[in-house]
Amino acid sequence: MENLMNLADLFTPRARELVPPLWGPSAASEGTPTISLAYGLADPLVLPREELVETTAQILATDVDAVLNYAPVAAELVTLVAERLRREGVAAHEQQVIITYGSSQILGLLPQILVNPGDTILVEAPTFMGAVGLFVRAGAQLVGVPVDANGLDVDALETVLRDLRARGVRPKFIYTIPNFQNPTGTTLSLARRQRIVALAAEYGVIVVEDDAYSDLRFHGEPLPPMAALDQEGWVLRVGTFSKILAPGLRVGWAHGPKALIDRLRMVKVEGSSSPFISHLVARFSAEGRLDTHITSLRRHYAAKCATMITALHRELPELPFVPPDGGFFIWLRLPEGVSGRELEPVALQQGVEVLHGNRCYADGSGAEYVRLAFSYVPETQIAGAIQRLGNSIRAVMR
Amino acid sequence: MENLMNLADLFTPRARELVPPLWGPSAASEGTPTISLAYGLADPLVLPREELVETTAQILATDVDAVLNYAPVAAELVTLVAERLRREGVAAHEQQVIITYGSSQILGLLPQILVNPGDTILVEAPTFMGAVGLFVRAGAQLVGVPVDANGLDVDALETVLRDLRARGVRPKFIYTIPNFQNPTGTTLSLARRQRIVALAAEYGVIVVEDDAYSDLRFHGEPLPPMAALDQEGWVLRVGTFSKILAPGLRVGWAHGPKALIDRLRMVKVEGSSSPFISHLVARFSAEGRLDTHITSLRRHYAAKCATMITALHRELPELPFVPPDGGFFIWLRLPEGVSGRELEPVALQQGVEVLHGNRCYADGSGAEYVRLAFSYVPETQIAGAIQRLGNSIRAVMR
Repeated sequence: MENLMNLADLFTPRARELVPPLWGPSAASEGTPTISLAYGLADPLVLPREELVETTAQILATDVDAVLNYAPVAAELVTLVAERLRREGVAAHEQQVIITYGSSQILGLLPQILVNPGDTILVEAPTFMGAVGLFVRAGAQLVGVPVDANGLDVDALETVLRDLRARGVRPKFIYTIPNFQNPTGTTLSLARRQRIVALAAEYGVIVVEDDAYSDLRFHGEPLPPMAALDQEGWVLRVGTFSKILAPGLRVGWAHGPKALIDRLRMVKVEGSSSPFISHLVARFSAEGRLDTHITSLRRHYAAKCATMITALHRELPELPFVPPDGGFFIWLRLPEGVSGRELEPVALQQGVEVLHGNRCYADGSGAEYVRLAFSYVPETQIAGAIQRLGNSIRAVMR
Repeated sequence: MENLMNLADLFTPRARELVPPLWGPSAASEGTPTISLAYGLADPLVLPREELVETTAQILATDVDAVLNYAPVAAELVTLVAERLRREGVAAHEQQVIITYGSSQILGLLPQILVNPGDTILVEAPTFMGAVGLFVRAGAQLVGVPVDANGLDVDALETVLRDLRARGVRPKFIYTIPNFQNPTGTTLSLARRQRIVALAAEYGVIVVEDDAYSDLRFHGEPLPPMAALDQEGWVLRVGTFSKILAPGLRVGWAHGPKALIDRLRMVKVEGSSSPFISHLVARFSAEGRLDTHITSLRRHYAAKCATMITALHRELPELPFVPPDGGFFIWLRLPEGVSGRELEPVALQQGVEVLHGNRCYADGSGAEYVRLAFSYVPETQIAGAIQRLGNSIRAVMR
């Protein structure tokens, strides 16, 4: 029998208050006949299985100590990340790169450096709920700043920053997803990027630029990341190999001010990330293979996105959405009087799973939206899924 | 230019005080002609390269979503750990198992649950310095309890517990390595295991049983882990696949009281460990393959240990040590007047790298010892390495 009462006396006050995550990692659906549009999973068709087997053979044929023994993270991976950043115009330094177990590890560790309970963090409204969960668990006060068709509303941001300053509050950071945002699919305009960087310097606030989707641009020219516009060291750029290689490898990274990266390394208590996995990702990516792979991913996801847009225009022509230029998601506004929360179970009964908009707002608003992921669903099932969604919406309206 | 002054103002008080690790992860030696006996690395000869390539092919041929997409840690690995625990006599429950990025992640996260700055932790003297570094960084006060030929001195432990209680101090946990201890190679006797479990219950102190080496027993019968003797839920059993499979995969685990495991999951901010790696380890281990592999590892490391013992008896017959029944290390007492710190650079000049004993004590004592790892050095080089060590010791004595 566990002596729980007594054991629990040993917990720190913070450990006593710990609660399970609001929002766990997305799980693959359980093999029901339901078509899932709910989660931003990768398409299993484009997960590079054979290539990863070959790459495993390659890395294990060479320096086994570096790959399988106690060893630092692969220097080749750090260099790869730095080179990719320099291609985007970021003055990147290898010493300012940290490789982590997924980018969510960075979002989880960051509050350990920056957040005392009650400290303020600015988030987009709506935003990625995995991040919100981590920030809330750290005791942060979240302030939402609206997003429109051009991304984070910078006028609203400035107003929030000014109001907070008037009340003596200096927020710790602004959490933003600039490209093909989760969940809205919108992209932050260049002018807004410039303005955010200027506001960050003026108000002394870090910008956490979480850019999971930027490589998955379907059309148009890429915009410079805020890390490239930043002259004063306020931007922490966060990236991942989850969308461009495979989520299940759990490899993310951050680049930013040295003082911040150094401290991220210190709170990453398990030490540097897996030698095996980091060599695997570095070798997979070498000699242009990652770029080639990304090019095919872009075409693949662009086609699925186009198929979903066509289906939505045909099935639900009256419902507005911003067609995304990349990424995994479409953010659909529901008809007047239909709430996402109401729709979700009806749609499930019809055989399609969607994510209701409330789950993307820290304050529980967003009832008038659903998020549709076109990333995971087989392309041949998209039209059918949207038809089921249309039936569900009409059923709720009746 | 980075605006460091201003950025650093955003750090929490704790983040401001963070210091780099006292003791980083061991790195493979840099290809000098030096023979290294300094680090507990795995022998690259027994790292199962081909088998891991085959296993990678197998896991990627089946359920790609479970292995490469967003997914939970492999349930098969959790089951494997629980079954191995039950074989040792532990009443293990799958829900009370956490899989982590190496067992050091557990040692790093544990203080986040248990340690307020100034809290007391009991450690063996000497012990594994990686753990000490993590505990010190969390602000713990460490109290060392001596180790003799039968492991942790339980009389000394009881005296320490009694003295602390008299001063109103309840330590948070006792950190112990019961089998083939790092660095002494000694094994805790059964009677002492029983007494530690009883003391833990009496004093309300958690036992962190870090048992990295137990599978690498060269001879004699295994002793039950303290987790199997514990009837009241005070033991957290910590294990790793680093010594029995490959350190570079970074897979560790813990089993213990549910309240503690649940909280470990919550402070593991990146969520559950890599689907890919956990499936790789589970599949590698299936159908008795891990047991077969361990049997060959035992023979391999036993032979290297015997070779080192023979060489020590021949080269340095007057120096005492406890011949280990397993594991990676021999803890050698130096002649009167020779300190490990003095010896280390002389030995390096002679072409052999050892770890001086001071580095295994939280309080900097241990000058009269060196730790010799027989795990990494090629067997054919052991006699030569010990000869160089003998020459170095005699050089220091002169």
